[in-house]
Amino acid sequence: MPSFVETQADLFGAPAAIPAQRLAARLAGTLIADGDSFATRAVPGLTVTLEGVPGDRHAGHSRPADSRVPWYPRGTPIRNARQISLVAPDELAEIARRLGVSEVRPEWIGANLVIEGVPHLTALPPGTRLHFPGGAALAVEGENAPCRHAGAAVAAATGESAAELGFPKLAGGLRGLVAWVERAGELVAGSDIEVRVPPQRLWTR
Amino acid sequence: MPSFVETQADLFGAPAAIPAQRLAARLAGTLIADGDSFATRAVPGLTVTLEGVPGDRHAGHSRPADSRVPWYPRGTPIRNARQISLVAPDELAEIARRLGVSEVRPEWIGANLVIEGVPHLTALPPGTRLHFPGGAALAVEGENAPCRHAGAAVAAATGESAAELGFPKLAGGLRGLVAWVERAGELVAGSDIEVRVPPQRLWTR
Repeated sequence: MPSFVETQADLFGAPAAIPAQRLAARLAGTLIADGDSFATRAVPGLTVTLEGVPGDRHAGHSRPADSRVPWYPRGTPIRNARQISLVAPDELAEIARRLGVSEVRPEWIGANLVIEGVPHLTALPPGTRLHFPGGAALAVEGENAPCRHAGAAVAAATGESAAELGFPKLAGGLRGLVAWVERAGELVAGSDIEVRVPPQRLWTR
Repeated sequence: MPSFVETQADLFGAPAAIPAQRLAARLAGTLIADGDSFATRAVPGLTVTLEGVPGDRHAGHSRPADSRVPWYPRGTPIRNARQISLVAPDELAEIARRLGVSEVRPEWIGANLVIEGVPHLTALPPGTRLHFPGGAALAVEGENAPCRHAGAAVAAATGESAAELGFPKLAGGLRGLVAWVERAGELVAGSDIEVRVPPQRLWTR
């Protein structure tokens, strides 16, 4: 039986696996969605528990299934792996450029954390961990696919009505990540953080 | 700003992304760890909740940090993404061959689910979902790194004492996966299941 790595090298003719990686980054901003909408507002820091950010609309061990998981009946309780939304300033700037608007602010699209210093933040693989000073840690669930609701928020904030439909089309791969809390603690704006990317390989049958 | 995909193609000279994949598979066996050790015993099926398998030693929204996550103080509550252990018969047979033992049974090493029909089961990427008849679903946390405890169990069952240390050395990439419950329901031995692999790409800075 050939090993997986040998098989993959045959199929792709390329390095089959990338070892685990660590990089230093910065938590530039912390925000909470504690109002009537999914919009967030900047706060000096966030306390996170294993249920997410207490008082934030996305907190909880479970969440009701929604249009992002149409294979589950709407409203069915599913485990909440989308507790926290992460964005990167360079990616938001690129979205703004594509939409032809002056900026896309994290709070408009409901971001909880602004992460600086990670190239291609949105492309970090599921399972990546973010470690914060004091011990809190998040696990990346995956890309936060851009939706029309966020587009509508950008349209309202900028007056550029085309952004509502443009956002889901143009912000793919740039809108950031969703994550869940692995270890509780404090997330303080301005902190240095560490990103730990797991080993990667490409699976195919 | 070049897109992520363009960048990756430059770096690797290979397909940068693999689209989402689905494949049919089979739940060949269901087992529970409801005794004094981490060993499991075969049962006709398992009811799973968002906490895992009720009555199984690995159930819970949280678990105490252990030697697998030495960067957290031992015993600290962390979110439990290791509720359920999955193995594949072809991979267990390869482990047995490498160890020079006649077989490695799922119950010896604490497996909950025996999955047939997925090539390289252990290499499925984090975020892969397994969908079961009736609606239950699991999410793959990642590879279950082989440890000495499982090796000791194989050694005890086979009388091959070298298996205790051989297992962690030789079973890497073959010992299966750990997963958490995304949607509650019933897992019935003998069922056809569907495996949904997310889009894959390799991240590098």
